[in-house]
Amino acid sequence: MEPSSKLPSTMKAVVLSDFSKPLEIKEMPIPKPTSGQVLIKMEASPINPSDLSFLVGHYSSKKTLPTIPGFEGSGLVVESGGGLFGWKLKGSRVAVAATDECTGCWAEYMIADANRCFPLDNSLTYEQGACTFVNPLTVMSMLELCQKKKYKAVVHGAGVSSLGRMMCKYFENHGLKVINIVRRKEQVELLEKEGAKFILNQNDEDFDNNLNKLSQELNATCFFDPVAGSLTGRVLRNMPNKSVVYVYGGLSGEYCSIDPTDLIFKEKKVKGFWLTKWLNEKSLLGKAKMFYGLRTLLKTSLSTVINKEYNLENINEAVEYYQKHMSEGKVLIKPNKK
Amino acid sequence: MEPSSKLPSTMKAVVLSDFSKPLEIKEMPIPKPTSGQVLIKMEASPINPSDLSFLVGHYSSKKTLPTIPGFEGSGLVVESGGGLFGWKLKGSRVAVAATDECTGCWAEYMIADANRCFPLDNSLTYEQGACTFVNPLTVMSMLELCQKKKYKAVVHGAGVSSLGRMMCKYFENHGLKVINIVRRKEQVELLEKEGAKFILNQNDEDFDNNLNKLSQELNATCFFDPVAGSLTGRVLRNMPNKSVVYVYGGLSGEYCSIDPTDLIFKEKKVKGFWLTKWLNEKSLLGKAKMFYGLRTLLKTSLSTVINKEYNLENINEAVEYYQKHMSEGKVLIKPNKK
Repeated sequence: MEPSSKLPSTMKAVVLSDFSKPLEIKEMPIPKPTSGQVLIKMEASPINPSDLSFLVGHYSSKKTLPTIPGFEGSGLVVESGGGLFGWKLKGSRVAVAATDECTGCWAEYMIADANRCFPLDNSLTYEQGACTFVNPLTVMSMLELCQKKKYKAVVHGAGVSSLGRMMCKYFENHGLKVINIVRRKEQVELLEKEGAKFILNQNDEDFDNNLNKLSQELNATCFFDPVAGSLTGRVLRNMPNKSVVYVYGGLSGEYCSIDPTDLIFKEKKVKGFWLTKWLNEKSLLGKAKMFYGLRTLLKTSLSTVINKEYNLENINEAVEYYQKHMSEGKVLIKPNKK
Repeated sequence: MEPSSKLPSTMKAVVLSDFSKPLEIKEMPIPKPTSGQVLIKMEASPINPSDLSFLVGHYSSKKTLPTIPGFEGSGLVVESGGGLFGWKLKGSRVAVAATDECTGCWAEYMIADANRCFPLDNSLTYEQGACTFVNPLTVMSMLELCQKKKYKAVVHGAGVSSLGRMMCKYFENHGLKVINIVRRKEQVELLEKEGAKFILNQNDEDFDNNLNKLSQELNATCFFDPVAGSLTGRVLRNMPNKSVVYVYGGLSGEYCSIDPTDLIFKEKKVKGFWLTKWLNEKSLLGKAKMFYGLRTLLKTSLSTVINKEYNLENINEAVEYYQKHMSEGKVLIKPNKK
């Protein structure tokens, strides 16, 4: 553990000043945690689709520009601003989720709410720990939603994404079938190797027919859609009557396009899903149970496939690479790697 | 009353043989009612947006081609196929709704289910009576939906349509505010004359701002959308968080286009509304109450503005005229007018 007296006075951080401009690296004073906050020396932070949305101003957040982006990461707690929980965390390896009130993860150091830090098991690497919140909690929340709504099977619009690969394992472990939609032949093979049972390539000629048959057969009436655009309506059209699509991302950058007759005559519905809202509506006990479960799951069905690592200086290159290779695993930023 | 012995042996009827071709007029035998059915000599039948959808194959119906279109109308019951209710109706002036099992309204005579006939008060003309079902029942059902969901105010996407003008009066009578969306200045003036309080022209420069302000102010969280296309998402974007759009038509001929961030972060939802389904889910008592109310309402807040009448032979001209002048009142077909 690094005592705070030995901290440098400044840090490097990624700064977003303008939604239409590249990110900058700036040298700035290391922020001071206040009561209930801790200072974390950051080790790893993934680029998630929600970060990409945030970088272009499409994410719901109260943060004002300029700001440090990065919604989740991992690191070592090097200082506490006071408060019992913060004091206890000092010296701990933690996963952290950035809130509107704190700085972001793409910096050598970050200020975090102590109660948004999740102590990591020693057996879990910083790289895995960095991906604790966004994808695993989304997948767990989606399962809870499915159980609440009594869905028997789901369609997922990005089968080969990090979240998709987690969902497939985790949902199947809980008896819920997943129809994975992919875009390329190699992706079919990759998911087959990982044990996925239902994979449909949206560029196959008989995709619509196959989706229609399979979703009827499995009674898949729930569609998780991170893509939006024309895929939303195309998939919904081929699902059973009364199906619901939960849009949870806009990877296509386009508006959802929906056939009105599916809504009117087939009682299909279009809703959104947002992890933040789902967690906010949970009781403290509900949250505690979820995090307790997460501890083991991060090492098994909710583990993350890491594709590539970048240091802080190469943030723009990292973002560009991730945008082009989103389906090949997570891209991590390593803020303190020289 | 015309006794059945004096019926001619054949009738003229509009026939739809192909969704991509004009309608034809054919001479054919007058059909015979079976038990539970009646034969009606048709006096008037409106062209509704649902007819337009049906003519191009976009409506949900079990009817197979060739068929006689026309979903609602009015006329005189000239023969009964048996059954107590049918027998009692003989000689009555009725409004009628065509079911999948019967012939359509655009013919000199039609077969109808006796229990889909609604006896008309002598004070109600055949022209008004012809528009008994589709619009008035839709507006009544929409009010029921709003009361059930406790909406305080609604937005309507086609303020100047026949249905829109009914909705405006009827909803205001029941304490529910309606924001009427129109497309032209003359339409603003027309609705103002009819007493509408909230009218927004979607081609005004400040439409989005005004809709945003007004829907917040009135707490209008329900949008009835007969248009689809880009209007769906544009209106929804300017409504309060958690608003719901009920698409009930596709007048634009386009898919609904929705910003995914409205679904994800603002908890807005997209659903459909279909009168047939709403009525099917009602109890017999519920339906009886509704029809009892309809008796008076047809002469007051649910009366229809009639624009133009055509005889059967000019059906294609009538359809074309209606498509171009939908906001100027109903176009009626008069099947037995020579």
